[in-house]
Amino acid sequence: MPESPLPVIRIAILGCGNVGASLVELLLDPAGAADLARRAGARLEVVGVAVADASKARPSAPHLPVALLTEDAAGLVARDDLDLVVELMGGLEPAGSLVASVLTRGIPVVTGNKALLADRGLELGVLAQTHGTDLGFEAAVGGVVPVIRTLRESFAGESITRVMGIVNGTTNFILSTMADQGSSYDDVLAEAQALGYAEADPTADVEGYDAAAKAAILARLAFGCPVPIESVYREGITGVRGVDVSFARHLGFAVKLLAIAEQVGDGEISARVHPTMVPLDHPLASVGGAFNAVFIEGRASGPVMLYGQGAGGLPTASAVLGDVIDAARHRLAGSYSPAPTSSIDCSPVGLDELRSAFYLSIDVADRPGVLAAVATAFGDNHISIRSMEQVGLGDEARLIFLTHTATERDMAATLASLETLDVVDAIGGVLRVIDGEEEGN
Amino acid sequence: MPESPLPVIRIAILGCGNVGASLVELLLDPAGAADLARRAGARLEVVGVAVADASKARPSAPHLPVALLTEDAAGLVARDDLDLVVELMGGLEPAGSLVASVLTRGIPVVTGNKALLADRGLELGVLAQTHGTDLGFEAAVGGVVPVIRTLRESFAGESITRVMGIVNGTTNFILSTMADQGSSYDDVLAEAQALGYAEADPTADVEGYDAAAKAAILARLAFGCPVPIESVYREGITGVRGVDVSFARHLGFAVKLLAIAEQVGDGEISARVHPTMVPLDHPLASVGGAFNAVFIEGRASGPVMLYGQGAGGLPTASAVLGDVIDAARHRLAGSYSPAPTSSIDCSPVGLDELRSAFYLSIDVADRPGVLAAVATAFGDNHISIRSMEQVGLGDEARLIFLTHTATERDMAATLASLETLDVVDAIGGVLRVIDGEEEGN
Repeated sequence: MPESPLPVIRIAILGCGNVGASLVELLLDPAGAADLARRAGARLEVVGVAVADASKARPSAPHLPVALLTEDAAGLVARDDLDLVVELMGGLEPAGSLVASVLTRGIPVVTGNKALLADRGLELGVLAQTHGTDLGFEAAVGGVVPVIRTLRESFAGESITRVMGIVNGTTNFILSTMADQGSSYDDVLAEAQALGYAEADPTADVEGYDAAAKAAILARLAFGCPVPIESVYREGITGVRGVDVSFARHLGFAVKLLAIAEQVGDGEISARVHPTMVPLDHPLASVGGAFNAVFIEGRASGPVMLYGQGAGGLPTASAVLGDVIDAARHRLAGSYSPAPTSSIDCSPVGLDELRSAFYLSIDVADRPGVLAAVATAFGDNHISIRSMEQVGLGDEARLIFLTHTATERDMAATLASLETLDVVDAIGGVLRVIDGEEEGN
Repeated sequence: MPESPLPVIRIAILGCGNVGASLVELLLDPAGAADLARRAGARLEVVGVAVADASKARPSAPHLPVALLTEDAAGLVARDDLDLVVELMGGLEPAGSLVASVLTRGIPVVTGNKALLADRGLELGVLAQTHGTDLGFEAAVGGVVPVIRTLRESFAGESITRVMGIVNGTTNFILSTMADQGSSYDDVLAEAQALGYAEADPTADVEGYDAAAKAAILARLAFGCPVPIESVYREGITGVRGVDVSFARHLGFAVKLLAIAEQVGDGEISARVHPTMVPLDHPLASVGGAFNAVFIEGRASGPVMLYGQGAGGLPTASAVLGDVIDAARHRLAGSYSPAPTSSIDCSPVGLDELRSAFYLSIDVADRPGVLAAVATAFGDNHISIRSMEQVGLGDEARLIFLTHTATERDMAATLASLETLDVVDAIGGVLRVIDGEEEGN
């Protein structure tokens, strides 16, 4: 039986950095073309690649014909022969205007732009649905980890209670290495920069901005309500001391920067990013190096964990390509992936009301009565102590506390009380602890 | 702004066992109705539930009105007001005929029937596509673990090299408990039966039939080619001895029953189920108890692991409900989830050609020259020994070998040679080892 000729899907790509170049190679390398066409049910043709500098050499995309390069992104997406646009420019503008204009014409968009999605994801999703087309963004959170599709589709009927993710590879590499080597943050950061795992200006990663954008996206998908990025509490890893990472391990915990989206009360959610002590037997604790993982908890499903490479051109391009093929199949079938366009109201809970167990390291004078004074500061503020260890430091002592679950407000009040005590020389690390005790204790 | 009335999706459910009853409760419990309707974009109405005995009491589905029960499954699916059918009867017939008749009418089907999918999945998938509708079967493999959607959609563009899964909770519980307690297979099986984790007749689980059906489904999805269940090599856990599980742990491995789908050569694949030694630092090694996990490796993606509860009414019903909502959204949008209807040819590789490292336990007489004789049997059959440990047993000794990678044919020949040796009293456990050494060694 002669095969009928394959239909063609014409693709414009905006941006050709690390991920873009890997995607271009996956699409253009003749070695994979037949298999890709079979999977998509179409020949995937790249009609143009918009870049900032078309004259720049692109050794990582050897199959990319120079003739496809253009510096005119707006002109490229305005072509009337496009079936699909992949946006990998990053940033809010011009990416946002370009994506909106494409969706408005009923043309599917695949993007990995977390900043754009955190800022305008809800609006762009509604735009796609209104015009009967797809907006794919699997690559925006967790690299190759299929968390977006799982939340949008697999968990479509699930009442999700909490999503916790290791969604930033740079900080996970730094914290994992601090734990393994017993090194300081500054030393490991320098090592990560030398290895290319951290940027020369690491602020977006180490201060938690990258993870906060992803937390906003995860919270919106998990709970179906708008979560402005400004409402995400954010605390990076620059204040995490090597001594606390080591002591956490001694106590049976790993320190991880987690993005957490949690249902706190009826219609109340919390989205936040902070260093967190995770019990060593929790599946998130063993996620090392540059890997990402997302842990989803639902009322009926129980816990589900997804794990894979969170960054890197090729793994991220693989996630983009999955969305491209999905959108191409839909386009050919005159179909799209419907999603709820209505969102519920939910209010972000202020940090004050949140409850965690806490780890505290306090340097005190080593003399009688000190522990009583310190313990009184906890008790006066309604915080119950679960365990305490004392480490001698010559004339001083270091007290390491694990508390039972307490509110952030009570912990802040306790810290303020402790600071007024003469016997307290310094309050060292303060870390939140998850799942270290049964709920309700 | 007044809300327009929600459309209605009318659902027939075939089967009301453990998963069916949990699904009925998720759909009918008024507490979740509003949230569910919002997620689906429709009111999900159960119009009938087909069961074998309508007079039986159903305490696990307290919200199910008796009037919805029917013993006439064929009559139920023939109704002309259905939007969606959920098949949870299990078995090949009448489930297969009913599912086919529904798909032929362009009505979406959600099923968790692994036997049916392993036997007729390709044909039913084509039927769904031809009639522009959905066939969802997330619950068929891995319970709540979203492996089907990940393989069909997220990895749609990926060149997958291997999929390995812990897909049977009963055997994973037994093997995990043998390792933790140092107990024998028979003792732990009895414990699992007493706890309700294993059936009175555990054959389908412990002999690997359940896992083999899932391996066939995973192989078909991963490689896009038909994989008859008869071509899946199957070896259960009844021959796994407590002493081998203990020794494996001593050597740094966990013993797991893995379903493996692997690309061996160009167009050649292997689908198999057997007890496997997994290095303790591999993510699959720490998947304990009744949890399931699937480890997917792709050329661009690298490794991805998905993890969650593999059985249980509620988690599995959660997976079914995800498919139901997805299909409902599609139905409302006049859309469906397109998938490739063409499949490539691939030939199953015979076991003889497969390469693994091996673990072997051999009981021998404890006298000079024995090791030389045994080692000669390996060498004559081209098998290179990676490590050997001797354990004294009075007059006897037990030799524990780990080999480098070798073919099954050479290992079978080695075992045959060993059996002819006078000094060999018994060949004990033989286990395949994955990823215990770099490839190519």
